[in-house]
Amino acid sequence: MSEPGPDVMARFVGAENLDRGRDYLEQLDPELHRYIIDFVYGEVYAGDVLDGKTRALCTVAMLASLDQQLQLGVYVQAARRQGATEEEIREVLRQVAVYAGFPSAWNALATMKAALDRFDGA
Amino acid sequence: MSEPGPDVMARFVGAENLDRGRDYLEQLDPELHRYIIDFVYGEVYAGDVLDGKTRALCTVAMLASLDQQLQLGVYVQAARRQGATEEEIREVLRQVAVYAGFPSAWNALATMKAALDRFDGA
Amino acid sequence: MSEPGPDVMARFVGAENLDRGRDYLEQLDPELHRYIIDFVYGEVYAGDVLDGKTRALCTVAMLASLDQQLQLGVYVQAARRQGATEEEIREVLRQVAVYAGFPSAWNALATMKAALDRFDGA
Amino acid sequence: MSEPGPDVMARFVGAENLDRGRDYLEQLDPELHRYIIDFVYGEVYAGDVLDGKTRALCTVAMLASLDQQLQLGVYVQAARRQGATEEEIREVLRQVAVYAGFPSAWNALATMKAALDRFDGA
Amino acid sequence: MSEPGPDVMARFVGAENLDRGRDYLEQLDPELHRYIIDFVYGEVYAGDVLDGKTRALCTVAMLASLDQQLQLGVYVQAARRQGATEEEIREVLRQVAVYAGFPSAWNALATMKAALDRFDGA
Amino acid sequence: MSEPGPDVMARFVGAENLDRGRDYLEQLDPELHRYIIDFVYGEVYAGDVLDGKTRALCTVAMLASLDQQLQLGVYVQAARRQGATEEEIREVLRQVAVYAGFPSAWNALATMKAALDRFDGA
Repeated sequence: MSEPGPDVMARFVGAENLDRGRDYLEQLDPELHRYIIDFVYGEVYAGDVLDGKTRALCTVAMLASLDQQLQLGVYVQAARRQGATEEEIREVLRQVAVYAGFPSAWNALATMKAALDRFDGA
Repeated sequence: MSEPGPDVMARFVGAENLDRGRDYLEQLDPELHRYIIDFVYGEVYAGDVLDGKTRALCTVAMLASLDQQLQLGVYVQAARRQGATEEEIREVLRQVAVYAGFPSAWNALATMKAALDRFDGA
Repeated sequence: MSEPGPDVMARFVGAENLDRGRDYLEQLDPELHRYIIDFVYGEVYAGDVLDGKTRALCTVAMLASLDQQLQLGVYVQAARRQGATEEEIREVLRQVAVYAGFPSAWNALATMKAALDRFDGA
Repeated sequence: MSEPGPDVMARFVGAENLDRGRDYLEQLDPELHRYIIDFVYGEVYAGDVLDGKTRALCTVAMLASLDQQLQLGVYVQAARRQGATEEEIREVLRQVAVYAGFPSAWNALATMKAALDRFDGA
Repeated sequence: MSEPGPDVMARFVGAENLDRGRDYLEQLDPELHRYIIDFVYGEVYAGDVLDGKTRALCTVAMLASLDQQLQLGVYVQAARRQGATEEEIREVLRQVAVYAGFPSAWNALATMKAALDRFDGA
Repeated sequence: MSEPGPDVMARFVGAENLDRGRDYLEQLDPELHRYIIDFVYGEVYAGDVLDGKTRALCTVAMLASLDQQLQLGVYVQAARRQGATEEEIREVLRQVAVYAGFPSAWNALATMKAALDRFDGA
């Protein structure tokens, strides 16, 4: 667990987006910013038990089930960064229909499309 | 998608549990039973885009986020059957704390322990 | 809206259960008890725009979607009291799988069975 | 259960909207599209145990409780198509306040108004 | 509990916003409007067991946990009106990350910032 | 933020329960245990912006809204330890009916009663 939080965050959100993402968090709330860097990325995501792709797909599954579209868009891109294909992400989101219902799956697929348009167009 | 629903279900819940599981579903509701065999396993889980381990871990992530303890117990065992280690399942459940809150992660870890006690003692 | 709350409550939970139900609410919290009699039954349920059966089935649909098993058991019985058949209640609960996911539908069908065993055995 | 999925879907979303709705689903995800036609409409909604109006009002109740505004707008219109009056839909949404809280009821009534403006203006 | 509902509502939403708020509710649904005045403000909020600041902060905590952004904006302002500082509101919202997950805390802080910009700029 | 996590935890769960609580967490998951000590208590709860009573009542409000009964029982006792009266806790839980619905308020009041029986009998 020795990898610094910002480095772990960069692997998931993209090194090119790190400064912008951290600036946004800092102006939102400096404490929340610190929690996300030190706890979320510095602790939870820093472990090496799971590979980054599995981790990102599980996050996609959770965010879609909880209808958290904003963060889902970020993690759809993170999953692609970690090597997941669009079709693998779609397959996770279809499975959301079984556990959280069709509206959540539907919303998530719309969020995925918009996020991948930005990602692949970048 | 040509693998029959019962065969797909057997891969996840265990061939030795298939008849008992289906009997339970049949007495719960014959229509729901049919939906689970034909749609959930015959369609959604039948695809080969995701390997069984990733699929089961994503299901674990979703069920824990939604606090569905009964089905979570079944899918913790399914994840082990598909090759996930206890530590990998734990890592997914720790990530639940970030997205769905600590109570959901806590509940899920308690469910996991009980499910693995039954699984490893079987 | 002139029908008194206790009378409306009696139509849904059964006149023979009214005193016991109100005693339970009174010892739980006298204010919540008053809110349920005056607001929930005296206002919301007192309207005559919807017939009692449709109202009870919509309540069953909501409680199942929200995984509120305790109150769902009460309203499964209320739906029967208002003329809904077991098969109609089952059909509503199957629909829950589409909107809230299969685990919620599954849990609700198990709650329904237990509630109807008590109701029909009474 | 012999009525084809597209015909059942047309009864709820309106025959005049069927092609547009299916085109949207197809570009969102062809698999989800197939699930909705074959499973949701071809199976769950195809049964004749419940009349269409009761079914649509229960769907309105569920979607409002789950705060799924996009699909709620579609099913408010479906309920009108199946013969529910605006006042009946309102009464279901008032009941949402009791089970899912006032914010969900409030959001749902706002969604209903916008959906009925489009429906009655069509 | 003798304080009239509109007076209680005025203490939380601001006397200068009362008429506009009530007009909005009236056009949304006259019954919901009456429930909010008579039950929510005339009963639940009318009690003097809790001071207004504690009550408003608990409401902020609940609305943020349930991801109800529209009403959260109103109650962030109500909390300020009842004497809570911005930093106290932030501290409640950071605690949301623990119980409902980081996405809910993040969304709530963004809603808070927008609500306070309007409040302090008024 | 210099107060150690275990000391902060002791203030909320009771010094006499600290070892037992930590033993339970350790056997549940050593990582989750560490997160709760270092992050939840060592960071989030360690701030002095909010007094302990307000903090505990907000936690009660959140846990009740999310229907997390296990942790709610712990925090009902924590609220009493921080000086909240039973009547103040009840008032928060009545407010839950408004935002998360009556079933959540009802469940929470039952959990509160059981938790206070254990607390006052201790």
